[in-house]
Formats: sequence, structure tokens, C-alpha cells
Amino acid sequence: MLHFECDYARGCHPRLMEALCRTNEDATAGYGEDPYCAEAIEYIRSAIGKPNAQVHFLVGGTQTNATVIAALLSPWQGVISAATGHVTGHEAGAIEQSGHKVITLPSHEGKITSADLESYMEVYTHDEAREHIVEPGMVYISFPTEYGTIYSRGELEALHNTCRRYDLRLFLDGARLGYGLAAAGDLTLRDIADLCDVFYIGGTKVGALFGEAAVFPEPGLCRAFFTVMKQHGAVLAKGRLLGVQFAELFRDGLYEEISRNAVERARELKDVLRQKGYEFFLETPTNQQFVVVSPAKLRELQEKVCLSVWEPHGEDFVIRLCTDWATTPGEIEELSRIL
Amino acid sequence: MLHFECDYARGCHPRLMEALCRTNEDATAGYGEDPYCAEAIEYIRSAIGKPNAQVHFLVGGTQTNATVIAALLSPWQGVISAATGHVTGHEAGAIEQSGHKVITLPSHEGKITSADLESYMEVYTHDEAREHIVEPGMVYISFPTEYGTIYSRGELEALHNTCRRYDLRLFLDGARLGYGLAAAGDLTLRDIADLCDVFYIGGTKVGALFGEAAVFPEPGLCRAFFTVMKQHGAVLAKGRLLGVQFAELFRDGLYEEISRNAVERARELKDVLRQKGYEFFLETPTNQQFVVVSPAKLRELQEKVCLSVWEPHGEDFVIRLCTDWATTPGEIEELSRIL
Amino acid sequence: MLHFECDYARGCHPRLMEALCRTNEDATAGYGEDPYCAEAIEYIRSAIGKPNAQVHFLVGGTQTNATVIAALLSPWQGVISAATGHVTGHEAGAIEQSGHKVITLPSHEGKITSADLESYMEVYTHDEAREHIVEPGMVYISFPTEYGTIYSRGELEALHNTCRRYDLRLFLDGARLGYGLAAAGDLTLRDIADLCDVFYIGGTKVGALFGEAAVFPEPGLCRAFFTVMKQHGAVLAKGRLLGVQFAELFRDGLYEEISRNAVERARELKDVLRQKGYEFFLETPTNQQFVVVSPAKLRELQEKVCLSVWEPHGEDFVIRLCTDWATTPGEIEELSRIL
Amino acid sequence: MLHFECDYARGCHPRLMEALCRTNEDATAGYGEDPYCAEAIEYIRSAIGKPNAQVHFLVGGTQTNATVIAALLSPWQGVISAATGHVTGHEAGAIEQSGHKVITLPSHEGKITSADLESYMEVYTHDEAREHIVEPGMVYISFPTEYGTIYSRGELEALHNTCRRYDLRLFLDGARLGYGLAAAGDLTLRDIADLCDVFYIGGTKVGALFGEAAVFPEPGLCRAFFTVMKQHGAVLAKGRLLGVQFAELFRDGLYEEISRNAVERARELKDVLRQKGYEFFLETPTNQQFVVVSPAKLRELQEKVCLSVWEPHGEDFVIRLCTDWATTPGEIEELSRIL
Repeated sequence: MLHFECDYARGCHPRLMEALCRTNEDATAGYGEDPYCAEAIEYIRSAIGKPNAQVHFLVGGTQTNATVIAALLSPWQGVISAATGHVTGHEAGAIEQSGHKVITLPSHEGKITSADLESYMEVYTHDEAREHIVEPGMVYISFPTEYGTIYSRGELEALHNTCRRYDLRLFLDGARLGYGLAAAGDLTLRDIADLCDVFYIGGTKVGALFGEAAVFPEPGLCRAFFTVMKQHGAVLAKGRLLGVQFAELFRDGLYEEISRNAVERARELKDVLRQKGYEFFLETPTNQQFVVVSPAKLRELQEKVCLSVWEPHGEDFVIRLCTDWATTPGEIEELSRIL
Repeated sequence: MLHFECDYARGCHPRLMEALCRTNEDATAGYGEDPYCAEAIEYIRSAIGKPNAQVHFLVGGTQTNATVIAALLSPWQGVISAATGHVTGHEAGAIEQSGHKVITLPSHEGKITSADLESYMEVYTHDEAREHIVEPGMVYISFPTEYGTIYSRGELEALHNTCRRYDLRLFLDGARLGYGLAAAGDLTLRDIADLCDVFYIGGTKVGALFGEAAVFPEPGLCRAFFTVMKQHGAVLAKGRLLGVQFAELFRDGLYEEISRNAVERARELKDVLRQKGYEFFLETPTNQQFVVVSPAKLRELQEKVCLSVWEPHGEDFVIRLCTDWATTPGEIEELSRIL
Repeated sequence: MLHFECDYARGCHPRLMEALCRTNEDATAGYGEDPYCAEAIEYIRSAIGKPNAQVHFLVGGTQTNATVIAALLSPWQGVISAATGHVTGHEAGAIEQSGHKVITLPSHEGKITSADLESYMEVYTHDEAREHIVEPGMVYISFPTEYGTIYSRGELEALHNTCRRYDLRLFLDGARLGYGLAAAGDLTLRDIADLCDVFYIGGTKVGALFGEAAVFPEPGLCRAFFTVMKQHGAVLAKGRLLGVQFAELFRDGLYEEISRNAVERARELKDVLRQKGYEFFLETPTNQQFVVVSPAKLRELQEKVCLSVWEPHGEDFVIRLCTDWATTPGEIEELSRIL
Repeated sequence: MLHFECDYARGCHPRLMEALCRTNEDATAGYGEDPYCAEAIEYIRSAIGKPNAQVHFLVGGTQTNATVIAALLSPWQGVISAATGHVTGHEAGAIEQSGHKVITLPSHEGKITSADLESYMEVYTHDEAREHIVEPGMVYISFPTEYGTIYSRGELEALHNTCRRYDLRLFLDGARLGYGLAAAGDLTLRDIADLCDVFYIGGTKVGALFGEAAVFPEPGLCRAFFTVMKQHGAVLAKGRLLGVQFAELFRDGLYEEISRNAVERARELKDVLRQKGYEFFLETPTNQQFVVVSPAKLRELQEKVCLSVWEPHGEDFVIRLCTDWATTPGEIEELSRIL
């Protein structure tokens, strides 16, 4: 079987595994108070151009979203998200579990617009009954989105400006950050660090066994973030496992390099799909490709390829094909023979 | 420096690391739906003698405690714990975060007694104002306890019986389960599976990189446990990492073997401590040893040994020295020269 | 000024005030354990034709919604509501505060359809990732809705049947129940008791100073409802104040009689509005009337009439005019001169 | 039967009932935005000597405690209380329901000491694992306490100072505030407003049908308190009912006068009890008296007097006898004949 169903089907990049093996017998302090985490934090600070950034390593994406949101919202606040945002649909109510409403805005291929945000905030601000309503305290976006699309620098700046105007925190979920940055957009990691109050750098889907690096570009937004992590079960006893992996990913550009691989393989895949006349559900420049297939075609493909059935589309289905850091040109060729 | 500060300072047992390396390039389904998890579940079912047991793999201890308790309690219920229980003191309010009170009973060297439990439940049951009070819905115990002590079979049976009488779930936190079973007590893993409604087998502190196996000996106690895990950020995307490790630990008795190592080293350490005239804070048959030292002695030791300062003891201090699955006889000898 | 802004601007019906005065010096047990509550419960059981119904008196609507939902949902469940439902928009996140997601379905003039519900549940049930999603556990509807519309008996039966099929509780928010029953629909109080798992009879908006009667037609759905009430701050120390008022409302048909008054006054108001050529925003048979007015007209009206500005409507505004149990024919005449 | 079981068995003081009747037909804005609430707020500001105080009216005590604590704590914080505090024992877990731990200190006849508080905070502050522990964010005390005892000015100053030193909010539960102030202590209402960050003036137990006035002597501590109230179901639609009652209580000293009545009657009761040789469980200067009686005596008394059985006391029982704003000298005489 070929594997294009997701970007977390394999283990980790060999260099990370080697580093984990090499350091396995070291005895270090727990909970992230070890030299590997310290090293990884320095690499990340340097990569984002924020020497004082506060960086915490967590294990998974839902956990990171829930912890960041719980840490930054006041009890009477909610978080704004696209209607297709991961926090509203696929986290089993983790945000609500910590007491906060997810307020949804229309999804434009996974993205929200600053115009929609502006308009929501205007209505809220002028609503005479607004004290009876959840106060928006944060905007959650993903980059790339759940639909593989990306924000341009201009779009992120516009969201940033609207957030500033209405005193909203801007939080970017970077579960697939590398793939977004490797796409042919104009947004850089440093832009993200300049424009967001908090974001995370995804490891699980980009070459690590697991791990997400939550980054507060300017320190001081939440003085007790570690305690909130603990409260949410998000502190790894052997925290150095995260430090070891992120140090490796950010030591000499490995994160960028393997992200690029996924995007290049996706481009090859797109070419094949286009040549073969597949209908694209939407256009995406990153590692996820969404195409429409008939039920018969779906059954045929599923015999040889692991893929994701995304949603029904009339009588047909939208399927998702994912490349990742480990996808080889050979696998694309093999897939192209099947498609 | 010698490392006796805790049982999670090192990585994992070499066999687990080999298994992780060997399976690293496999592509499998995520979230625990892979053959390694399936295999590990079978080994565990067989080890506990419960062929239908429901087993879920989580990443860490606080996370497992919070998830199990949130999954099993009704909103108006609380959980009973020893005043020294991990859930009440060292989880940053994770239990309360999901809306539940921790009701404390006196700690007897880390344990609770069925007599105290009985007495609490009698008062509660006959309190005319009990509808204004949190209803006890579960009893949380740890084995070994936070003080390294263990329950006998008789003690656990008594707790089990009291729980049955008052319709309380009995939950055993086995973060260090192997060390408890390896100690010279009379309680077996099968007893625990017979007497508890739910318990977990700790991996993080017993040879794994991370991981805890939550076990419901009889299925059906919580039909949506996976969803509660997801809600608590406790689902690992590459769930097979947990399966690979637990399969290795339970394939041919490795878990028992390395647990025994820790307890044997602790026994040697105890002998040394006794010979050298150290005052024991309490008697423990497992891998944690608690002794009283003067401030001067503490400073002296800390130059050569990483250890835990547990709590003040008059002018002196209680320190904790931990052995673990990786401690060698050589390390004990070295430590004995320093003590 | 004329008062048509809401149905809770005045105190209570004189008969309730007399009863409160008459019983003021009685000394009774607190928390609803008094003879007045017992009497009111019997009247309600008799009115709904359910001699074993479990009835609890709470103080307000948001409180009742939050308490009922928290009491009946499991931690991994959410509640389905119309996108315009009170629980999603105007309760400041009370439902999320107790950990539950509000899942919204399209609002059809305030109502949800069994077809939309069926369709949502079908997609959920067949979603392979449904364990990552909040499980729907309850359907919340209001009668009349926030837009003054009402469900027919057929519509409620259809919702009831869909709920049964998918194991969902059906909860009817009756903050304005009397006005819904007095409207020219075919749904009776006994139908509601037959078709809903839980509902409440609104007092605050229908002649009482405050108070809502939560009714479980069949006992046993939540054995600890009082404790959940206490936990949510919803237990009134002098609970008899609620019993006294509800006993008066249900002793000899007062609740029906004053509800009818509101609906008759609303009908007169509708006639006036229609004659004067006002554009109706939607058609409603109950005590709330929604019409579209220009900004100039709005300013003019607001000089003499207290009213609610509901929402913008292009350049114009939707306003709401409410009658209630106390509105007199004379007030309608006076208003008709102004309109 | 004589009624000495609690201080909420009767309705309200006749003057409040008259005011409720007089204003019953007024139509006002809801949710506390009415002239009666405005008037009551001014009276309270004047009584406490804080012209900018922020005052909110809530319905009951548990509700007020839960709302204030939820509004002021950060998600990682807990509230410190005496082990006998109402928030820990008799609120069905309302504090935990909103995600916060109640940290208990030893109760000294219902009170906590600044020495115990200091000592707890010292240990916490120096605990190397404090990031794994709930951060204390607030101190909850009651005045009078659940045992009828009162803090002196010196004691409250000491608590205030310790709170300042450790950045803790000081919250005083004044469910029976009037009775505490009427007792022969040296603490005044103005002292309380000077020394506490927030407190409430109890109405339910001191002459009102219901109602508690939450007071922030200095504004700005929680800018969204109303929204938190709404979220906790603590906003009364006809909010003016609270304003009307509190305006009456504070217009010309009624609150003080009726509080004094309860304390004077309690003094008479104490004299009788002492003369008759009853053993006092503890000494209290307020309206609650705790004495020890044999089972036989208890049965005898219960035939003619409603009283509270507080707790077992060896073979005997501690009972509580309460006077209140309505207790007459005649009732004390009658009781004295029975005792």
C-alpha cells in the first residue's frame, strides 16, 4: 500500500532518531529543565529573530491549542475561529472543556478574513446587550489551514491590525507550519513572530515523533504558562525528548529542508492530478491536495493507496492526498501510475 | 554526578529504543489504531488475566489521572484521595480544572485505610445536608504511593469492598506499578485487575520514554473514553509509539525484570543507609527511600549526588533517593562511598 | 412612556404578591422543602398529567438552561441548538462554562427542523473521525422561540422521534411557555410533557417576580439534580417564594388566563401594525412582534415607547414589541395612536 | 413549634415587603439597570465610605461566592479557605465546577490566622516544585464565620497585610454581615471596605427575601463582572427586586437595627443557656449559638423547637440555635421555658 492518508503515518526523520539514541542514557532534569531544551529554545529564538521569546514544548496539537487558549483567555472570553478550524470541529470539545466558547466566522477555504473579523467585532462592540454575550478575547487561525491554504503577509497584517484595534490576542496554529512556509507564499517565520501574540511550530507532522513548540515572541503574556500546561496534562516528564528533537530540527535548517520536500512532492502530485484530469476541490500550495472522485474511482484507489475521505460532494467524494517530510519522488511516481 | 533524584532522569530501556528504531519507517494508522498497540493490548490483557479488558495508552501520569477521573465522575461527584495523593498536591489543579473536587482522607504513610473511608462515607450518607455536598464517586489510590509504600492484598480488598458498598469506583494510579509489584508484598497484578475498576500501568518511570496504559479490567465503564482522551489532549497522533514500547515491556517479562532491578538496588541502598546510621523517615519496600539528613550533610551530598529534597523535618530535611530500572550495582557502590 | 420593550419590565401579578404577603411571616424549611413548593409541584403534576414528574424550582432562565444541560450531559457530550437559540447567543457562555459545546443547526425563524437534525446526526454517526468530535447528547429548543414562533405538535413529534432514534435528550426551554400555549397552535402542555425529556415552565416572563419550574415528566433522569442546582448557585434559600408563586399560577388556571391576555393584546397590536402598513420581519402568533422600521421612524417611536431594537435590516431596523400578562387594551390603544 | 433552626426561615422585614408591593406595577429596565438599584448602590457606597465602589446585586450566597471567585482568579489559581469554610464544605463543589481548587487552612473556630496563611505562603513560595502546584490567588473568609465567630480589626488587618505581601485578593463572605457588625467586636463596615478587595453584604439572612450585594470598594478589579454573573446564572431579570430591598435596608439604618435585634436576642438566649447549665461548644458573639446536648435532651427539644443538629460530639450532639432579624423577646422567653 502507498501512504498518502496523512502526514503523521511514519516515525521521525533519521537524524532525530539518531539524536534520541545518542542521548538516551543521559540523566537530565525532567519537565524541560534540561540542556537540550535550552539549546532548542536558543535555535528557535534565533530562527524567529526574537531573542527573548518564551518557548515551551508540548506533545501534541490539540493539547497545545487547548493549553494556549486556556492560558490566555479570561473566564468570560471566547476564541474566534474559522468555522472549519481544528479547535471547533476536531478536538472533541477541548476548548469548551476549559470553559470557553469557540465563536465561528465564515471559512474562506479554511481562512478567515479581516473584513469578517472587523464586521463581527463592530456588531459586538455596538450591541447593547454585549454584556450578555461572550467577549471575544482571541483569534485562532491555522497556517496552513485545515484545507492546506495559506495566509499572505498582507492578510496576516490585516488580521494583526484588527486584533490590535479590538484588543484581541492573535494565535496561529502551526501544526504544519513548515509546509506553509515552504509554499510559494510571501509570509516568513519572522513575519509570523512579528505579527502573532503566540504561535506554535509543529513537530508531529513535520519530521518529529511528536512535539509542538509554543512560542510567545514577546515574553510576559502568561507568567504561569508552565502551570497551565501541567494542569492540562501537557508537561512531559522526560521533557528533553522534545528538546532533543527540536534542537535537531532547527540546528542547521533541517526543518526547512524536509518541509520543502513535502511541498515539492505535492507539486509533482498536483501536476500528475492535473494531467490526469482530476477535479480539484480547491487550490492549495502546501502538502495537502483535495480532489473530487467518483465512488467507483474511490473504491479502486483504496485498493492500493491509503488516503483520506474528506467529505461527500454531491454523489462524489472529496479525498485528501498528503505528502510529508518523508515522501519520496519514487512514491509519487508509483502513485501516478495508479491514479 | 550520581543520579538518584527521580525515576525519570534517563531515556528508555535499550530494547524499547531498538524497537522504536526498527519500526520508525513503518507507516501506520494514527491515534492508536495500529498493530503495535493491538499487540501491546493483547500482552496486557494476558498479563492481567482479563481477556476483554479495555486498554488505552496515554502519554503521562497527570494526564492519565485527569482523563480517567473526568471520564468516570458525574458532574456532581468528587474523588476521594489521601491528603498526600498526587492528584491533590502536584497536578496544578488538573482535577478541579475539569470540575471535580478532590476530597482528602488522612494519609497513613501515603495510604488511606478502609476504616477512614468507611467512616467518611458513613458521615456523608447520614448527613441531612448531603445534597449540598459533593457526592463521592471514586476513590483514588496510588501503588506504590507517593511515599513508596504499598497496599497489601487485604488492604486493597477492604478498600474494594467499601467501594462496592457505597457505589464508588476504585482507581489505582500505577505510575510506579512495576516497583510496587516487585516489592516483597502479596499483591499481584491480577489482584489489582480483580479489585480495581480502573488502574494504569506506568511506563514513564519504568523503562519507557513515556507512556501509561490505562486499563479497565471489565469493558463498558466508559464507552467514550477515547473522546474524553481527545478532549484532554491525551491522544498521541503517532499512537503506535506507545504500542511499540508497551509491547516490548510486556512481551517476555521485561517490565517485571527491570522493576525488580530497581527494587533490588533500593534494597542494597537501604542496607548501606542502615549501616551508616541514617535515620529513615519511613519504611518503604520500593524504589524510593526517604531519610533524614542535617543541612550540612545535605550540602555535602548535593555536591556529588542529584537527589530530591522532600520536605523540612524540624531543623533537618527529608531527602528522597530513587533507584530505577537502569540503576546499576556500581552506582549503588559509588553512592555508598559518598554517603 | 409606554412599555413594550420586554415581558419582564413589571413585578408580578397581584394575586402572587398577595400570596407572598400573606405567607411572609410563616417560618418554613429552606431550599424548597416547604409545603408551598409541595403544593405547587402537585398542581404542576396535575396540569401536565404526569403524577410522578420530578419538579424543581429555579430562579431564572439562563440558570435553568445551564443547570439542566450540565446535569444531563456526559463530559464528552454537547447540546444541539438553533443558531439563534438563547443558550448559544445570550447566556455569556454559561453552557461552555460547564464544559459543553453548543452545536448549532440552521434557524428557521428560531426553530430547528427534524430533517436538519436527522441530517446532522447521520453525518456524525457515519463520520469515521467521530470519536474526535463532540458527541451530541441533547437537543435544546425553545417554545416559543426567541423569534416568537411555535412548534406544531407534528414538528415536536418529529423532533422527539429523531431524538429517540439517536439517543438524544429533548429539552424545551419554556421561558415564555404560557404565551406559546395560548397561541393558536395545536401543541398542549400535556403533549410537551409526553414528548420532552425535560422542559421548564417560565414564571419570570409570565406573571411571577421570578422563577422557572424545571420538569422531568418521568422521574429518574438525573438523581442528583438538586446537587447540580446547588453547584450552579441555583438553589434559593427561601425556596418557598417559588412554591408560593407557582402554586398561585397553577391553582385555578391563572397561568393560562394571563398568558391568553398577552396573546390577545399581541393580536390587537398585530392588527394595528398591519392596518398601518408596517412590514413584518416574520409572522409570530405569540406575544413578541417583530417589524421593520426606518431609522427616522425608530427615533420617533423611541420618544414615546420603550421597545427593543432587534437587529439591523439593511438601512432599516427590526424592532421588537412585546405584550405580556399585564398589558391592557388601553395600552394597545395608546400605542396605536403613536404607531 | 418554635423556630430557631436557621436565619432564613421567614420571609422579609415588613418594610421591604411594603416597598416591593408599592413598586410592583412600575415598569423598569431589567438586569439591575433601574433606579432602585442605582439608589441602593448609592446608599451602600455612602455606608461604606467608598464613593466609587462597584456594587452588584446577586440572588444567593453560594452563587455570589462562586461568581466572585470565578471572576477574580486566573485559571491556574486557587482560593485559600478555612477547612470549615462554606465554599469548601457546603456548596456542592461550585468552586471546583468553575475550575478552581479550594486550598484549606486549619479552622480556628471557623477563622484562619494570618500566621497560618503566612506559613502556607512561605512554604509555597519556596517550594521548588511550586509550578506543579495550584497558585494561591485569593483568601476567602466569612464574617461572621460558619461558627458564628468574628474577626477583630487587628486580625483582619493582619490578613490584609499578608495578602498584600503575597499578592492575594482578600474576599469576605458577609452572608451574615449585619450580625457580625452588631456583635461586640471592634470591626466596622468601613474597616471591611478598607481592608478587603471584595466582600458581600448578605440580605437573605438579614431581613430580605433574598439578595446579596457584592462590593468592590475600589472599582476596576474585574471589568467584566456582569458578564461573569450572567455566565453563572446570577443575573436576575427583574433586578430591581434586589435594588428595592437593599435601598430599604440601607435607607435609614434598618440593616443595622434588625441585625442588632438578632444579636440582642442571642445574648438573652446565651444567658438562659448559661443559667440552665448547658455546655457551649464554642463561644460566639453573634446570632448562632452552639451547645452540646445529650440524645435524650435532643429528642425532647425537637418536639417543640426546630433547631439544627450540627455534628456528633462523642455520644452527644452539637446543636445550633439561631436568632434572626425577626426573633422576638417573647420567643426567647418561650424557648427558655422549654430548654
